[in-house]
Amino acid sequence: MGLCMQGSYQTLLEHQRRAWLLGSAAALLAWDQETQMPPGAGDVRAEQLAQLAELQHQRITDPRVADWLAACAGDASVQADPERSANVRLWRLDHARATKLPGSLVHALAELESKAQQAWATARSKDDFRRFQPWLERMVALQQQKADCLRTGTQSRWDALADLYEPGMTAAQLRELFGPLRTRLVALRQHLGTGQAPDDRFSRVVIDQAAQEVFVRAVANAMGFDGKLGRLDRSAHPFCTRVGADVRLTTRFHRDRVLDALGSTMHEAGHGLYEQGLELGNLGTPLGEAVSLGIHESQSRLWENHVGRSAAFWRWCWPQAQQHLGRACDGHDAEGIYRAANLVRPSLIRVEADEATYDLHIMVRFELEQALLDGSLAVAELPYHWNRLYRDYLGIAVPDDRNGCLQDVHWSCGLFGYFPTYTLGNLYAAQFAAAADRELGGLARQFENGQFAPLREWLRRQIHRHGRLYEPAELCLRVTGQPLSSQPFLQHLESKLGRVYGLG
Amino acid sequence: MGLCMQGSYQTLLEHQRRAWLLGSAAALLAWDQETQMPPGAGDVRAEQLAQLAELQHQRITDPRVADWLAACAGDASVQADPERSANVRLWRLDHARATKLPGSLVHALAELESKAQQAWATARSKDDFRRFQPWLERMVALQQQKADCLRTGTQSRWDALADLYEPGMTAAQLRELFGPLRTRLVALRQHLGTGQAPDDRFSRVVIDQAAQEVFVRAVANAMGFDGKLGRLDRSAHPFCTRVGADVRLTTRFHRDRVLDALGSTMHEAGHGLYEQGLELGNLGTPLGEAVSLGIHESQSRLWENHVGRSAAFWRWCWPQAQQHLGRACDGHDAEGIYRAANLVRPSLIRVEADEATYDLHIMVRFELEQALLDGSLAVAELPYHWNRLYRDYLGIAVPDDRNGCLQDVHWSCGLFGYFPTYTLGNLYAAQFAAAADRELGGLARQFENGQFAPLREWLRRQIHRHGRLYEPAELCLRVTGQPLSSQPFLQHLESKLGRVYGLG
Repeated sequence: MGLCMQGSYQTLLEHQRRAWLLGSAAALLAWDQETQMPPGAGDVRAEQLAQLAELQHQRITDPRVADWLAACAGDASVQADPERSANVRLWRLDHARATKLPGSLVHALAELESKAQQAWATARSKDDFRRFQPWLERMVALQQQKADCLRTGTQSRWDALADLYEPGMTAAQLRELFGPLRTRLVALRQHLGTGQAPDDRFSRVVIDQAAQEVFVRAVANAMGFDGKLGRLDRSAHPFCTRVGADVRLTTRFHRDRVLDALGSTMHEAGHGLYEQGLELGNLGTPLGEAVSLGIHESQSRLWENHVGRSAAFWRWCWPQAQQHLGRACDGHDAEGIYRAANLVRPSLIRVEADEATYDLHIMVRFELEQALLDGSLAVAELPYHWNRLYRDYLGIAVPDDRNGCLQDVHWSCGLFGYFPTYTLGNLYAAQFAAAADRELGGLARQFENGQFAPLREWLRRQIHRHGRLYEPAELCLRVTGQPLSSQPFLQHLESKLGRVYGLG
Repeated sequence: MGLCMQGSYQTLLEHQRRAWLLGSAAALLAWDQETQMPPGAGDVRAEQLAQLAELQHQRITDPRVADWLAACAGDASVQADPERSANVRLWRLDHARATKLPGSLVHALAELESKAQQAWATARSKDDFRRFQPWLERMVALQQQKADCLRTGTQSRWDALADLYEPGMTAAQLRELFGPLRTRLVALRQHLGTGQAPDDRFSRVVIDQAAQEVFVRAVANAMGFDGKLGRLDRSAHPFCTRVGADVRLTTRFHRDRVLDALGSTMHEAGHGLYEQGLELGNLGTPLGEAVSLGIHESQSRLWENHVGRSAAFWRWCWPQAQQHLGRACDGHDAEGIYRAANLVRPSLIRVEADEATYDLHIMVRFELEQALLDGSLAVAELPYHWNRLYRDYLGIAVPDDRNGCLQDVHWSCGLFGYFPTYTLGNLYAAQFAAAADRELGGLARQFENGQFAPLREWLRRQIHRHGRLYEPAELCLRVTGQPLSSQPFLQHLESKLGRVYGLG
């Protein structure tokens, strides 16, 4: 009987791996859509993606999966193995969730996501919200359907969707974290107003894009991003995706924004290191998947902000910048660039926001998507309320929708309940960075010598290689000894920015 | 009852379109493997492709297809419609063929094709046939299995496979075409030896690769290749593939081989124009597919050789070359480049062969793959016999396997029975070009004015838009009024090369 049960685990494993292969093929099609696909090919691409999503869904919801799961539950040898029993537990969770969604809805969502994303890109480039509105209305309606399929008992729609991205997190918990965080971030911004803002001319120096590309590739290599199992391309909106054994990053270049290109690259490479830190042998199982988007984002933020915006990093990076960017560096120095990289200035665009105001952008979206999902906000009213919240939270006026509610791709891709994982990422990143600093005996000295391997391997050991073995809350406790808190993040910001602004 | 039958056609159409979507997704994965994929990702890519091939095969061989086909056969309204009845006839053919192949074989072949292709690339780069030998042995064994599943009655294995690429063509027919062709090509080569070989220094001028790329893109655009539904990339081995609504070409650049880059680009763009000339609305049905590889190749050869190696083309192209290639053009002129592009010199590499010796390369492969499939040639003996035939047919000694039997990707991709379609392409191209010249009233004057639209639209009207409506032999008769013959090809070569070699 033991052997027979062993057989069920193996059968289930192969079945799930095949579902994963379909998902990873779809990921390649989506990557191609953003980086390579000619403009006229979008409609067929949407059909291809819908077809693959439906086939993957059929496989995940195959009724035999329930039988194999039951057989595994009764198999003592599987239950005694921590990794295999974790896979079985997580497959059961995923299967239960997937069977709540009808195949027709999965197909319709995949097709709408591909098309709405293309419609969003056009609407944004033309600054024409009305053009996007019907697509977003249809998307909100399908997301409401999806949430209604998923939610249990009195769970809200938003909570049902957010649980897909951050297992165990609820809007109520987030409000508790976000309330005091907003108060202190606003106070910090006011306090910095009494200090000396850094000179940020370097952020606007015009630099040949090919030179910028060589520079940011050198930094991604120094971080340890593995080109044998990854690549870096350009796209309008930077992202990181796994398309099989390999992991693909994108970044973007503007002639006069080299720090933006560097920040985007380090951010996406941080995601890439997490993906490359998963065990190759676990691909196609839950232990070969990232545990949550908040933890994923913590890895990108840690490299972007705790490494890339540190004084020690710039002491190492400045000679690299001089080598690759040439005369653009004349008249600047490492300390000055470090300060320029830490300018705080409330701005319109989330992905360009500084560390101290970024989370205020998230709070705007968190409010609005809850209201869209519960039906208390009509899509047509979105621009008005977006602009109102930007005034309230960031103190700035939104001049147009391109720089307002059309700036993010997420909702067009069907990502509702997703935005707060960015702020969770900031909080986790600070808490992980503080723990790594304690355990590795001073990261700054390593960074200024270009030694990023100790941090990278610590993250791999502590976080990456576990995949979904521990839930985010448990993982945080194991890695840092403490539950998630906004204290390390606020301490990091107040201390660093106080110094940069001469208020130390 | 009419409505019910109408329903069957529509059901079948949607079912087949879904199978086509899976195939086109797989085509994207294969394109990515050749142009973008990081080197460590190959094993998972092979699994992805095998998975998609198996799913597509399951769909094509779905038992319900036979029922829908039967219902369509009994539906007078479908039978009265030439396009729908053609689709039904061709779906029946494809279904009958596919159901002969077990899913396990389709899966195994797809996985082996992806892996063997990667093994071939390594073996070729290391000039190590023994490294590739086990992969080719496994491939030959699976191709024999495939042929044995497909063949009927006394049909040979080679004929059974060749019919997949060139419907209706047999080895016996090819031997009848090839015998006299070889005699006259050899005689032509000997005759040219008494003439004045053109100066081909321009072929070896060192030119910046970025400049070459701009130049060949300009020519592809002038031909009318549509960038809204296509793109052009680099790869080791140039190819053209459809990945959905869009069609992708690749070419390659060497610092000192601009005419090679141009020829490859015009060749692949010729394939691309055929694909772009199919009706978008027919995609996913037989009428939205190319009729055969011989006809496909006729389109690439026509643009590469009858356009790109003509004196008139170079009168138009020379100013373009001067604009994009700059000083590399100093000391040359249009007439000289035209002559350089028509140098005849027996060489080792098929894809670099001139028009007069190219088909001798094909005849070598045609002999060898028949022997591999019927078991009379062991894979281990391939290099010896390859080299022997090159001595016999081309009169040259093969120095190593990299320049010998490891030069082509085809067998590693499972393409057996495929090579002769290249020679058929040469013959069809000459016959089509002669017909177009008669009907359009002199192509040369159009080419020298950069007017390629009349030829392109004639090809679209006569050939492309029909898809698989007519079999190759019937199509040839409709387009040219004659059955396929080697006369137009030999006349074209003897006349042009006689003039180039001062023997006119």
